[in-house]
Amino acid sequence: MIHPSLMPPITALPLVERYQRIRQWSDFLCQPLATEDYVIQSMPDVSPPKWHLAHTTWFFETFLLLPHLPSYEVFHPQFGYLFNSYYDSLGQRHPRPQRGLLSRPTVEEIYRYRDYVDAAMQSLLAEPLPDSLEALVVLGLHHEQQHQELLLTDIKHILALNPLRPAYRSDLPDLPPPVPSPDRWLDYPGGLFTIGHTGSGFAFDNELPPHPVYLPDYWLAARLVTNGEYLEFIEAGGYQQPEHWLAEGWVMVQSQQWQAPLYWEQIGSSWWVMTLAGLRPLNEAEPVCHVSYYEADAYARWAGKRLPTEAEWEAAAASLPLTGNFAEHQYYHPAPAQGNTRPDQVFGDVWEWTQSAYLPYPGFQPAAGAVGEYNGKFMCNQMVLRGGSCVTPQSHIRPSYRNFFPAATRWQFSGIRLAH
Amino acid sequence: MIHPSLMPPITALPLVERYQRIRQWSDFLCQPLATEDYVIQSMPDVSPPKWHLAHTTWFFETFLLLPHLPSYEVFHPQFGYLFNSYYDSLGQRHPRPQRGLLSRPTVEEIYRYRDYVDAAMQSLLAEPLPDSLEALVVLGLHHEQQHQELLLTDIKHILALNPLRPAYRSDLPDLPPPVPSPDRWLDYPGGLFTIGHTGSGFAFDNELPPHPVYLPDYWLAARLVTNGEYLEFIEAGGYQQPEHWLAEGWVMVQSQQWQAPLYWEQIGSSWWVMTLAGLRPLNEAEPVCHVSYYEADAYARWAGKRLPTEAEWEAAAASLPLTGNFAEHQYYHPAPAQGNTRPDQVFGDVWEWTQSAYLPYPGFQPAAGAVGEYNGKFMCNQMVLRGGSCVTPQSHIRPSYRNFFPAATRWQFSGIRLAH
Amino acid sequence: MIHPSLMPPITALPLVERYQRIRQWSDFLCQPLATEDYVIQSMPDVSPPKWHLAHTTWFFETFLLLPHLPSYEVFHPQFGYLFNSYYDSLGQRHPRPQRGLLSRPTVEEIYRYRDYVDAAMQSLLAEPLPDSLEALVVLGLHHEQQHQELLLTDIKHILALNPLRPAYRSDLPDLPPPVPSPDRWLDYPGGLFTIGHTGSGFAFDNELPPHPVYLPDYWLAARLVTNGEYLEFIEAGGYQQPEHWLAEGWVMVQSQQWQAPLYWEQIGSSWWVMTLAGLRPLNEAEPVCHVSYYEADAYARWAGKRLPTEAEWEAAAASLPLTGNFAEHQYYHPAPAQGNTRPDQVFGDVWEWTQSAYLPYPGFQPAAGAVGEYNGKFMCNQMVLRGGSCVTPQSHIRPSYRNFFPAATRWQFSGIRLAH
Amino acid sequence: MIHPSLMPPITALPLVERYQRIRQWSDFLCQPLATEDYVIQSMPDVSPPKWHLAHTTWFFETFLLLPHLPSYEVFHPQFGYLFNSYYDSLGQRHPRPQRGLLSRPTVEEIYRYRDYVDAAMQSLLAEPLPDSLEALVVLGLHHEQQHQELLLTDIKHILALNPLRPAYRSDLPDLPPPVPSPDRWLDYPGGLFTIGHTGSGFAFDNELPPHPVYLPDYWLAARLVTNGEYLEFIEAGGYQQPEHWLAEGWVMVQSQQWQAPLYWEQIGSSWWVMTLAGLRPLNEAEPVCHVSYYEADAYARWAGKRLPTEAEWEAAAASLPLTGNFAEHQYYHPAPAQGNTRPDQVFGDVWEWTQSAYLPYPGFQPAAGAVGEYNGKFMCNQMVLRGGSCVTPQSHIRPSYRNFFPAATRWQFSGIRLAH
Repeated sequence: MIHPSLMPPITALPLVERYQRIRQWSDFLCQPLATEDYVIQSMPDVSPPKWHLAHTTWFFETFLLLPHLPSYEVFHPQFGYLFNSYYDSLGQRHPRPQRGLLSRPTVEEIYRYRDYVDAAMQSLLAEPLPDSLEALVVLGLHHEQQHQELLLTDIKHILALNPLRPAYRSDLPDLPPPVPSPDRWLDYPGGLFTIGHTGSGFAFDNELPPHPVYLPDYWLAARLVTNGEYLEFIEAGGYQQPEHWLAEGWVMVQSQQWQAPLYWEQIGSSWWVMTLAGLRPLNEAEPVCHVSYYEADAYARWAGKRLPTEAEWEAAAASLPLTGNFAEHQYYHPAPAQGNTRPDQVFGDVWEWTQSAYLPYPGFQPAAGAVGEYNGKFMCNQMVLRGGSCVTPQSHIRPSYRNFFPAATRWQFSGIRLAH
Repeated sequence: MIHPSLMPPITALPLVERYQRIRQWSDFLCQPLATEDYVIQSMPDVSPPKWHLAHTTWFFETFLLLPHLPSYEVFHPQFGYLFNSYYDSLGQRHPRPQRGLLSRPTVEEIYRYRDYVDAAMQSLLAEPLPDSLEALVVLGLHHEQQHQELLLTDIKHILALNPLRPAYRSDLPDLPPPVPSPDRWLDYPGGLFTIGHTGSGFAFDNELPPHPVYLPDYWLAARLVTNGEYLEFIEAGGYQQPEHWLAEGWVMVQSQQWQAPLYWEQIGSSWWVMTLAGLRPLNEAEPVCHVSYYEADAYARWAGKRLPTEAEWEAAAASLPLTGNFAEHQYYHPAPAQGNTRPDQVFGDVWEWTQSAYLPYPGFQPAAGAVGEYNGKFMCNQMVLRGGSCVTPQSHIRPSYRNFFPAATRWQFSGIRLAH
Repeated sequence: MIHPSLMPPITALPLVERYQRIRQWSDFLCQPLATEDYVIQSMPDVSPPKWHLAHTTWFFETFLLLPHLPSYEVFHPQFGYLFNSYYDSLGQRHPRPQRGLLSRPTVEEIYRYRDYVDAAMQSLLAEPLPDSLEALVVLGLHHEQQHQELLLTDIKHILALNPLRPAYRSDLPDLPPPVPSPDRWLDYPGGLFTIGHTGSGFAFDNELPPHPVYLPDYWLAARLVTNGEYLEFIEAGGYQQPEHWLAEGWVMVQSQQWQAPLYWEQIGSSWWVMTLAGLRPLNEAEPVCHVSYYEADAYARWAGKRLPTEAEWEAAAASLPLTGNFAEHQYYHPAPAQGNTRPDQVFGDVWEWTQSAYLPYPGFQPAAGAVGEYNGKFMCNQMVLRGGSCVTPQSHIRPSYRNFFPAATRWQFSGIRLAH
Repeated sequence: MIHPSLMPPITALPLVERYQRIRQWSDFLCQPLATEDYVIQSMPDVSPPKWHLAHTTWFFETFLLLPHLPSYEVFHPQFGYLFNSYYDSLGQRHPRPQRGLLSRPTVEEIYRYRDYVDAAMQSLLAEPLPDSLEALVVLGLHHEQQHQELLLTDIKHILALNPLRPAYRSDLPDLPPPVPSPDRWLDYPGGLFTIGHTGSGFAFDNELPPHPVYLPDYWLAARLVTNGEYLEFIEAGGYQQPEHWLAEGWVMVQSQQWQAPLYWEQIGSSWWVMTLAGLRPLNEAEPVCHVSYYEADAYARWAGKRLPTEAEWEAAAASLPLTGNFAEHQYYHPAPAQGNTRPDQVFGDVWEWTQSAYLPYPGFQPAAGAVGEYNGKFMCNQMVLRGGSCVTPQSHIRPSYRNFFPAATRWQFSGIRLAH
């Protein structure tokens, strides 16, 4: 097992080493799995773990090795069809909802595929690369980190759906105990702010260009909404009262019979929560997690508050240290607040729903070529989430980082910070 | 037939007369219908014309007469169940997709219902009303005007779906001939602008509060995209090339087999268009109409441009005269541009898709009580359209008016103005 | 109103007069309808009444007038597209589930269509016809009679779905009071029987050829299962106990939440039943009606009995007088048993589910040409019903008559006779 | 590998040895699988191989060990929930369409379950059993054999769906070469026949009681319809012409875009067929396989013939030797005809669709208790197939054996014998 202290600051490493470290972390995450676990697609949004391992490998094969490593030969002629995710410009691909119908290639074969591509990447990275190629490698590594987060997110869904409720790992460390943190509001004076990525480091195209945004005065809660607070909403009849809900949210509540966040289950009179360490009693001090945008918005309305906009969130987060409960700590679960005197739980723990739709920034230009399909084409009917979660690698996140999911999404590690 | 010159300025009239005029216009719009036309729901988004006539009446009965006219008795005890549209706080209602399954109440009975409620409203309006009630009546009249637009929109859909392609009216006036208007860009310098309704007149809650927005420099096309220009996109393979489309849009193109705007049909080698005057050859000078947000966005991307934001649109439109091709002209069809030296076709003709998601303005507060369900609860997964159309009553529109529909919507009179 | 005594024996009339009588009966059935009622398709199985009126007319136009009346011109060039039901060999047709989306042609226009075709048929029938053509006219009249039954069946569904529960006719005569008829079994010794139509009169191709069938000894109930008896099944938990049900039936019970026959509704603690005379309290002496095959089979199993086969039914019914509660009596509702000393309620009242699948008789040959699509192509996944119902014209039925519907069908006037 | 000569006559063995042999054959069938193959459910009708292995084991645990082996303890408390197939009387069960979402229990754990139950069964079988228990064990073994057939059928579907088209086994023996066998008709004089199981050996309840059936004279084809003959139907436009098809069949052809039997694929101008040995060129001499009832019926109609009834088939097959191409030969693929002088390919090769619906025989009584859910509750909307196939164990079949599937089923090894 790799200790988290060994991980960051990964960006300081030479590229070839950074490549190895990040690729190995994917393997590390899959170590606890049974072969059978690698195969399951528990719903269309989820991909089988072996698909994640192959798809991230395909990314390097397709965008780096084939065009740029002379005499490189593809590992298998049909893997391009099987492991393309959504790049329309690269031709036909295997339908997403059928990823769980494939027993072959086997897990072993996919690990051979990874080794084969890693060896070739080693050759490619042996010599200094032109900046544009180096940027593509870095993009591929951030892409791999996104799938590392998805691996944990999807594994949790796969195991939680199983009536046996198996644990992913039974040896995960205990969370730190809560520090009493009553509700507290931090105030932020309004004005013109520059939003978007400004530094020289890596950023996705959707964080660009930086641009001025006018914000009114606003307040943010010092910490996240807790399970205990959310339980009050449930017990007050929140899931039975349409007045708190967006129209679409109320349709979901009724058609999907939502009565609590995903992974909560009532056994007798007690609430339990499925975690990557197995089924555990609900801890009221932990941040509420696995709620949809509809639930986050309804909770906020019930509480007489609202969700922040992404600009409000970013303006407040820009100057904070980039630390928190990330995947490297291997809790894989959001931790209770550690105080309320300054903004807490901003990075890590849970992705925070904002009330901002995922739209292009003024002057947005998608990257050229097939990698330009990365972000821009999803800018419709999704909401922005900010800050990363307990399954996000720390080196993957930035204050300007924009995550986005449809409003009904619940299998992500998503939670609530209130604003007004 | 009521001549349009008789119609505005309706807001200058005493309320009782304004009530009569607006209510009569609904009846006028339905005059050309056969009894059978009143019954059809051609898709879940469409309501049968008789439902519109009853629902707008129910609004006055429910929000004005029952609470405020002493001794008022409901016309029929089950009409509250049948003609509530989406007000959850008013109890159970008839399921929307089943509105076309009701032969009863008959059309005649619904006109009796209108007469009954109009007579009672006459009593209520005979005496001066407190401001809050007067505001509710005005809201009811704007509500009726929204449904007048929907009546024409829905009637078009009902008739267009019929293989006989019947005309709504064969006596509609000819559109004005086009004035040559080559593509031309108007430039707007950036800065801080106040967006939202500011005057003392009526506005919906979603136009409030007015608030500062920072805009960069931008350019808007002087006129709308024409059928001829859109045809170039079609003939260049626009509907076959995923690179122009949002991911969701491309799914729609393929699953719905979209190949042209709604109501276009190819007969032999010619394009025809269904209109409220029946099937007509495509006129290349007219603005393209009945396109979804996905199509508007794909066209803009193909053309190397983009759609405006709603703030850009409003800042540009705020100072323009509120004239255009509105329902009162009874063309019920968008007209060719009349020049390009100044912004043309801004009001009327077609609703213009913006790239702005429909979200609350900073500080938005929905109205209290059931009428608060009017706007706020739809603020998710819809895009904003601006400017009104050829089926919008002129007295209903304002520069700050925000219309909103899901991105796949095509049966509205929706078109495209480019920006960059 | 036409008194039933005026109706039969219609087969004794000259063909031209028979044509007129039967065609007029369709009009008579529609007289009580509001124009709006003619338009509704309350579910895909139901057709709007105006569609029935036009489709039966189209049958004469297509199969008689166009090929056989020189210089006949079609009433409207698109009616062939609109009013073909399922004849694949006649080309494309309007999709069945969209019949309720057509406001045009109007009801008035369809009556003009009927008049136009009737006048032309008058010409055709003025001279003696060759036998094959006369047979086609007779087929067309039986076809019209089938749709007369469907008209009443569909009108009942259309009105029952309406929350106002309007009556089709409030002037229908009272049913005869029940004659006490306790359960009684009639025994039928086994042997070889000839099954299928043998006489010289009209029969559908599916009743042919007559052929020997070996039957074991069997018993049939002297009368139909009553509402009261079926209520015992409900109250004993029949709809909650899977052991009585076919696997597919149990899936329907759960997915459709069946708890009683179609058109039963519980108001407070009482059961009510929707009829063509409006909503009425449940009469326990009447035969249970509007049950699916699944319910008929489950009831029989619960009662320790079974349903008869179609051969058993036909062998028992062959020698009985062809009288009963048919459409001509204008009860349009099944009547209580009038005794149990001999087989009662065999013809009329309700169609009796048999446990026989609808399959070809040995040596079956479908008729040549498009009319051959009449019966044979439905011989899969349907069950046979026998005996006609209270909405079947008396002159339409025979002991060898085979009706057939999928096992989940409930909107037909279908009931239960037990066997063992 | 077990040579087929070692297998039969299994019924002659002592029960304990018979138990071992049949249980081992299930393991043998799964030997070639990768762990990943065990997990896949390629469509709702298919079960993952590991589910089959566990479910057949659960049968012995539930019906034999728990009630009859003192002090037996269940292997796992939740396996009853996970591995019950459709026995409603045994309580809630895991939903069938979600069998492929379970990675746990792992394959290894399921083999441990099998060992555990086998050991306990060994104890139970060590002493002589009362007849009723012995009958239950024999039922359990026939149940296991049914799932052995399903294992091969489902594995074929799982591998065929995979774009890599992997072979189940690449070492399967070659099929015997064809013996020229032109089309030839065998005639069978009519009369009264006894249909159903008569001997003292094992039979399912649905083969009972034996009963007289009257048959007219009939003819059966001496051999099965070949791929070459079926190809003529395809090339003559059979899949484009509605006149050959049952109405429901035509709906399937159009909605599912059927153009050939399942597992056929056209690569360039050649037809290939997926088999358990991988993708192979179409062999025109082999019997056509993997056709639905709709296709079998359409082919017969196109050829001017019909399918046999199950009584005709059984009367003809009753006296034939029970030999053929069964699973023990390990071809796992239908073989070409070996002549036409006497009925060929009657047992083994492919299940033969009959035109008989699956219905109870006169006097049918399902077995008492939960095992009574075995057959009777499926007697609706299924067609009977006869004779076994190349994946059926030889010791499992009888002339009176009734297999049954819905008419749209294609993944079974189902083919066509013509009659007239």
